[in-house]
Amino acid sequence: MIETPYLLFLGDAPDQLAAKVAQGIKDWRPEFALGQFRMDGCKADMKLPDMDLTEAKAAGAKTLVIGVANRGGVISPAWKKVLIQALEEGFDLASGLHNLLRDEEDLVAVAKACGRTLHDVRVPSVKYPIANGVKRSGKRCLAVGTDCSVGKMYTALAMDAEMRAQGMKSTFRATGQTGILITGDGVPLDAVVADFMAGSIEYLTPDNDDDHWDLIEGQGSLFHVSYSGVTMALVHGGQPDALILCHEPTREHMRGLPGYALPTLEALRDVALTLAKVANPDCVVVGISVNTQHMSEEEAVAYLGRVEAEMGLPAVDPFRHGAARLVAALANV
Amino acid sequence: MIETPYLLFLGDAPDQLAAKVAQGIKDWRPEFALGQFRMDGCKADMKLPDMDLTEAKAAGAKTLVIGVANRGGVISPAWKKVLIQALEEGFDLASGLHNLLRDEEDLVAVAKACGRTLHDVRVPSVKYPIANGVKRSGKRCLAVGTDCSVGKMYTALAMDAEMRAQGMKSTFRATGQTGILITGDGVPLDAVVADFMAGSIEYLTPDNDDDHWDLIEGQGSLFHVSYSGVTMALVHGGQPDALILCHEPTREHMRGLPGYALPTLEALRDVALTLAKVANPDCVVVGISVNTQHMSEEEAVAYLGRVEAEMGLPAVDPFRHGAARLVAALANV
Repeated sequence: MIETPYLLFLGDAPDQLAAKVAQGIKDWRPEFALGQFRMDGCKADMKLPDMDLTEAKAAGAKTLVIGVANRGGVISPAWKKVLIQALEEGFDLASGLHNLLRDEEDLVAVAKACGRTLHDVRVPSVKYPIANGVKRSGKRCLAVGTDCSVGKMYTALAMDAEMRAQGMKSTFRATGQTGILITGDGVPLDAVVADFMAGSIEYLTPDNDDDHWDLIEGQGSLFHVSYSGVTMALVHGGQPDALILCHEPTREHMRGLPGYALPTLEALRDVALTLAKVANPDCVVVGISVNTQHMSEEEAVAYLGRVEAEMGLPAVDPFRHGAARLVAALANV
Repeated sequence: MIETPYLLFLGDAPDQLAAKVAQGIKDWRPEFALGQFRMDGCKADMKLPDMDLTEAKAAGAKTLVIGVANRGGVISPAWKKVLIQALEEGFDLASGLHNLLRDEEDLVAVAKACGRTLHDVRVPSVKYPIANGVKRSGKRCLAVGTDCSVGKMYTALAMDAEMRAQGMKSTFRATGQTGILITGDGVPLDAVVADFMAGSIEYLTPDNDDDHWDLIEGQGSLFHVSYSGVTMALVHGGQPDALILCHEPTREHMRGLPGYALPTLEALRDVALTLAKVANPDCVVVGISVNTQHMSEEEAVAYLGRVEAEMGLPAVDPFRHGAARLVAALANV
């Protein structure tokens, strides 16, 4: 569990896209995003108050979150100086970088001397159990995709935000590094050892109030041969009561797999629901989330209308039109 | 890759069952099983020549394989003495124990001093790639089960043995600790990190002659919620051309999961084939392997006849009746 609120470290980000982790935190947990720390030459701007470490500390920030991708997989000396100073001033550090904070000897030494914590969210920090399949109380919704990177995390975050706004009980359950940094907690599923994958998701989504919904962040796709095992563990470990099908209609082949066509939404529905019913016979598919970013508004609306008619389920792009109809579809579950 | 042939260490095995790894090696790779090493009080007997370390070395043994489960998860002082002496006399050590050889400081020190290797087959020793899904040459057969521990490894080993006997080109590809110790090579799939599971199976079953068959050892079940992600990685990473369905008809619930009924063979066929076709559109289900150990011969024959008629596929218990009909079914693939 990462302590909040955060000071977002944007470093020397070459552009706005390089700081997409910071953007995610600002968009979805603005209450965690007290301010931003930008170095000389930083080209990203979250439109948050610029703060130095002392100002952020005084404002109550607990953790400096690296909200930017580093270049070349190296934590530069310029970054290092800020990170060390942050530890000295009493911040924990949190990072989703491939190269780990814990592999930097100087950071480890200073963190130890100052009694601070280094959070590398790419690495599991919990000894997860093997899944036991026991039915848990509360409700769970899982987004499953025709492919990787079609908007599953966005869909779950948007539904969670809508449910909170409506006063419903919900929790977004992060299963990837960006989601973990946004919420401060979660399971880095792609780094979990095979035998414990499903168990890690049971651990992440424990018993809860009967009217509470976990919105579980999806990973991969049952149809993506590189990562389908990870998705399978979410379907069985998550015991979803409701599935949302996620799709990006303009993609020409599966991400990173030339020659592999995307499945149809019907094929995804049939396979995902069959498998989900193993863990939860009452599971239903409640809606479809379409990422229409490469379509005009007119194209998007026409496409969504067609899918909705064909599938007999609400079909929306939560980025364009909000997640209210997907949330409404949960009411019958 | 573990050097063969082996001296099989049976230690102080309390009964024959405790030495099932040694039994597997003796049954399936008798040419690797030069002799057995038994300590005082050993109740297991592989009907192999009893050898001390010097005799085994003279006979050409390269590796002392721990063919017995230890009690209480501790490598006892009595065992330790033999293991250290084996290293000193020039043997490598190989083990599938939960507690690792590499965690024993004295073994590590002696192995280093003597230039010997400690093989802990529960732990991956290779940095596996992420699966790329590229079609490979040669043929692959995967056994998938309605449940865990229904005879998938046995089926693949029996088919491999039958194919070798017929002069066909085949390789058993181990994905679990016992299989790895039997053959000296393989992937400990349940210990691989999630993102690399399917890639480890691509690595294990590379391009081969067009008329060569990999018999891939199955793991878990698509219907077992604790391990289904592991199975999924085999289905997609293995790109099977042929599936064998494995079943144990007397089981009352999924192994370790009270309340979870076993799927029907039809349900397994439909789900496994649908998913396998994602990676290999030409995949077919060729036969059914039934573990009838809890049935009389008469019951078994009647059951197999019924399944064969219902499913329209050869249904055999390879332990009772051999694997020849399953191998014959591969001819049409």
